Amino acid sequence: QMPRGNLETIHPRALVLSAVRKRLDNLQFKEAFTLMKKHRINMNLIYDHNPSVFLENVKTFIQQVDSVNHFNLFLTDLQEEDVTVTMYTAAYNRSAPAPDTVPNTNKVNTVCDAFRVALCAQDENKYLLSVLTTYVKKSTPELGEALQLIKALRESNIKAQYVSAEEALKYLLFLVDVNELYDVALGTYDFDLVLMVAEKSQKDPKEYIPFLNELRRLEPSYQRYTIDKHLRRFKLALLNISKCGDEHFGECLKLVKEHKLYADALHLFNPSSDQYKEVALSYGNYLSERRSHEEAGLMYVKAEQWELALQAFKTCLEWQQMFCMTVKLGYSPDQEAEVARSLAEQLKGQNKHTDAAILLEQYAKDTEEAIVTLIQGSQWTEALRLMYYHKRTDFVESDLKSALIDSYNQQVELLSNMKADFEKYTARLAVVKQEKAKARLEFLEGGRNVNETDADLFSDTSSGTGESVQSSRYTSESQRSSLYSNSTGRSSKNRRKAEHKKWKLKEGSPYEDFALISAIAKIINYVDSLRAEISSLLRAMVQFHYDEKAAVLQVQYERFLSLIEKSIPNIWPDETEKTNLNTVLGPDATANTIARAVQQGQVVTTEEPLDPVIRLQPTLNKNHKWKLHALEPVDL
Amino acid sequence: QMPRGNLETIHPRALVLSAVRKRLDNLQFKEAFTLMKKHRINMNLIYDHNPSVFLENVKTFIQQVDSVNHFNLFLTDLQEEDVTVTMYTAAYNRSAPAPDTVPNTNKVNTVCDAFRVALCAQDENKYLLSVLTTYVKKSTPELGEALQLIKALRESNIKAQYVSAEEALKYLLFLVDVNELYDVALGTYDFDLVLMVAEKSQKDPKEYIPFLNELRRLEPSYQRYTIDKHLRRFKLALLNISKCGDEHFGECLKLVKEHKLYADALHLFNPSSDQYKEVALSYGNYLSERRSHEEAGLMYVKAEQWELALQAFKTCLEWQQMFCMTVKLGYSPDQEAEVARSLAEQLKGQNKHTDAAILLEQYAKDTEEAIVTLIQGSQWTEALRLMYYHKRTDFVESDLKSALIDSYNQQVELLSNMKADFEKYTARLAVVKQEKAKARLEFLEGGRNVNETDADLFSDTSSGTGESVQSSRYTSESQRSSLYSNSTGRSSKNRRKAEHKKWKLKEGSPYEDFALISAIAKIINYVDSLRAEISSLLRAMVQFHYDEKAAVLQVQYERFLSLIEKSIPNIWPDETEKTNLNTVLGPDATANTIARAVQQGQVVTTEEPLDPVIRLQPTLNKNHKWKLHALEPVDL
Repeated sequence: QMPRGNLETIHPRALVLSAVRKRLDNLQFKEAFTLMKKHRINMNLIYDHNPSVFLENVKTFIQQVDSVNHFNLFLTDLQEEDVTVTMYTAAYNRSAPAPDTVPNTNKVNTVCDAFRVALCAQDENKYLLSVLTTYVKKSTPELGEALQLIKALRESNIKAQYVSAEEALKYLLFLVDVNELYDVALGTYDFDLVLMVAEKSQKDPKEYIPFLNELRRLEPSYQRYTIDKHLRRFKLALLNISKCGDEHFGECLKLVKEHKLYADALHLFNPSSDQYKEVALSYGNYLSERRSHEEAGLMYVKAEQWELALQAFKTCLEWQQMFCMTVKLGYSPDQEAEVARSLAEQLKGQNKHTDAAILLEQYAKDTEEAIVTLIQGSQWTEALRLMYYHKRTDFVESDLKSALIDSYNQQVELLSNMKADFEKYTARLAVVKQEKAKARLEFLEGGRNVNETDADLFSDTSSGTGESVQSSRYTSESQRSSLYSNSTGRSSKNRRKAEHKKWKLKEGSPYEDFALISAIAKIINYVDSLRAEISSLLRAMVQFHYDEKAAVLQVQYERFLSLIEKSIPNIWPDETEKTNLNTVLGPDATANTIARAVQQGQVVTTEEPLDPVIRLQPTLNKNHKWKLHALEPVDL
Repeated sequence: QMPRGNLETIHPRALVLSAVRKRLDNLQFKEAFTLMKKHRINMNLIYDHNPSVFLENVKTFIQQVDSVNHFNLFLTDLQEEDVTVTMYTAAYNRSAPAPDTVPNTNKVNTVCDAFRVALCAQDENKYLLSVLTTYVKKSTPELGEALQLIKALRESNIKAQYVSAEEALKYLLFLVDVNELYDVALGTYDFDLVLMVAEKSQKDPKEYIPFLNELRRLEPSYQRYTIDKHLRRFKLALLNISKCGDEHFGECLKLVKEHKLYADALHLFNPSSDQYKEVALSYGNYLSERRSHEEAGLMYVKAEQWELALQAFKTCLEWQQMFCMTVKLGYSPDQEAEVARSLAEQLKGQNKHTDAAILLEQYAKDTEEAIVTLIQGSQWTEALRLMYYHKRTDFVESDLKSALIDSYNQQVELLSNMKADFEKYTARLAVVKQEKAKARLEFLEGGRNVNETDADLFSDTSSGTGESVQSSRYTSESQRSSLYSNSTGRSSKNRRKAEHKKWKLKEGSPYEDFALISAIAKIINYVDSLRAEISSLLRAMVQFHYDEKAAVLQVQYERFLSLIEKSIPNIWPDETEKTNLNTVLGPDATANTIARAVQQGQVVTTEEPLDPVIRLQPTLNKNHKWKLHALEPVDL
């Protein structure tokens, strides 16, 4: 027999919990509560055990327990967590629901609100302290409400039946820091409340009394503004100062600038008012500093600051808006022409020749320059249209024809250079792939442990000595490379940059295959993007009887495109995983090779999800009908 | 001891081959040849055994073998295949090289040419019949050359030392059909050759003599044209008739039309000649019939048929080219205005409001209509520019502002409808995926044989009763659906159509998840494509003080975009295979489940490579800066 001890006072948690759960199920809240208090069970369980049942029976709970202290104990214990899936998971065996299926409600707030309603329905005065607790416990404590309650109690002539206002305030100060409460009181703009709290604080009446008296003397909105500013509630301060009229507008604007409340301030004034325009002007200045020139321009328009707007729109090349401003500013035709000429140069620099031509034609009234600009920009049909419109078809002989031939020569050279690179890279890629496949096969067959060379293929330890794709020979061929980089999609470029840096085109570098694929993809995307340009060049050439040269270009481009199309399935096989599995499941597979391959496959996929450039083949815009029937190869 | 029989006459192929190879290596061609002839070894081996050695030693071969018959035997046996990797692969154990690394040379042609050179260097007359064989054996038999050789022999006064011209012709007719040879002779335009062959044929001299006499009377080029036409060599016929001058041009044009030789014909005439223009006109008509209106227009321009060109360009809405033609045709301003108005309507129908506005402004001189058109097309800044340019800013109040509000209302409604659909589809997709995962897990755990419901998930047996993605509710909402379909990439649409047809949005249909993903992808791509449109709308709204409405739209659009961004990883997990492997490699995996999963995985990937829509997540154009700082949510 065991020696007797204090064994009978040990209460296994599981048994206690079981007892509590039974009580809760039977709505025996008082007994459950007593049990939980005694055994220090987390009070959240009262709610978490069955939230809907609890919410339906708050009244019963209050009637049974009927103790302000107990209520406060329960309320102060409330937490956002569900103890049935955390602390007491063993007793409940509930699994946490998927995070995205949980409705976005706040448990503590729900309980506090329900509890307060029930308490007030029973007896607001009797349970006053608990009511205060429900305000304080909310995720954003409603201290103003709590203070108002105490103020009402103090002002009511009824003799305090349960607690005095004094006691209630003391309790509140026990829950909340006095300085915080003082600020809250001040924030209600109710000086009675402020005094009530201040008296309980350590604050020196010689300080706060004069401060409050000074405030009292102010005009209401300005008073509120002063308080808000004191409490650093700047948006509210803005709202209140905006009501204070013209004499305080300087202060208002200062507030706006200091705290960047421009957008908020615009809402508070009438767009036709001077104040609105002043705010818009400041906003424009602010946006200009942030280099948001287009939006700055819009703000200057709102502010009716046409000159500033003109400058802002000029900076971001918003030429259409600019020439609305020149009209507003009453520019003379000469002034407009000057602006147009300087802007046209900038637009040409950004390859926007069509826009530049409109400026030159309509604002600089310089038809000749407009036509030349369109020819420079390879806008053949628009150039022709303008020539005919202005009866200047002499430009066909003097400019257009030689430009067509220049453009033809450029395209032929560009295509042939790119094709040489394309063939070099694809040939090398085939070699690298073969080497890798061989290495993998040897690894699988030999069952050796990961050897150093193989490991390199999948590891992050690139030496950083090779030339990178970005900084490869490509970039040294300046004109072409800039074309390339323009053509690559800008999206998620930065994210991938880090990854790409590891890829070097240098022979034998660890990620050489990735570097090659990436370089090949660049060429493919660029060549594919030439369709429209080459199409319009061919049409213009045919129109002016350069059929034979055009045929050369068409054949060259077509052959390159079909070479690309044929190469794509070799460069981007349908599924990377698939080849793995096929190798694995060949006739020579053993259980070990399968397991190892599956493991290896998993390592590759989880540690290093392949970059889209490597995984996804470029899509060609095959539906663009660029070819001319007249230029199909002829053999006589 | 074995009974004696004819065992000693059996020569195992391997031994014979070994002997042949040894002889060939030692350049003992005669012995090798004799051995091969005796044992019926394929003669190609002489070359295939070591091509470069053979080509270097053709002379030795000829000197050793020195027999016209043997040469002919070798030559007629030549085939394009490499017998060391086909017929005699066992003896050589060479693997066929990858098809794309084989240089694109023609073996038979190479051997024939090298052989002929060597034969002629030895003694052309002696080996005449073999020389003829080398001509006949070429992939495109050079029968004309062969005939010329015989003709030269006949005309030479030297008494035939080895074979007479007569004998040589007989031998040639043994190799080639007489009628074919007759046509070849005719094709050389050499009537002596024709007669020589004709005499050997079964042809009736009463027929061919008059025919030849008639030909003799014709002018040389026209004679050649007639012969070429007779031989159905239409391109050559065209070349020859084109030299026959104006009186035969009718015939030439007839030939061009009959055999669609337009492009070829254009090469043969000077662009300034009437003939060139006639050909171009016919070509234009032909291209018009083929509905290649743009190219037809170009041909009419070459033909200087301005009216026809105008019509062709009008049909394909090439408005810039059109107004070059109206100038050529000397249209009056009224006529131009009429054309411009009718074309502007068509352009508006194709959502090309900017182009339409240029027509209305510049050719119809109708500023008001141009401005209204730009407003209709939501081209806010261009509309403003035109208003200022023509001092018609009254349109801001009368048209622009209400159009902004209409456009705003449309966008808000469109976004909210699409968001409802998006949420519905993603919610349903989550359910379907869960069901599938559960089904797969049950299948793996239970180890049951493929049950009928699971099999359906991967099979082709869709019942065809559900609504398809294409013909779903989407299409009934007419305006929106047309927007959707415009926004989906046009490339490889047809290829995928068949696949997509199997996908139905109906609940429980076999490919419901694919249908849902496809529908979701459509919404995502369309919503993403709205950036520019919404961006310009927001800017215009702010400029005219509709800040509050604009803020609503900005918030709504931003929330939708961020909802999309958050949803994408759930809809398109990084790698489909990966999840498979993870499930498989969980703690409960057994050897059987792994094997089965790998097998299943393989079935899925090989039989049904996933459609790109399912496999690849849409890429969002996140770099487009569409938001306005001024419209960030404000809370006072």
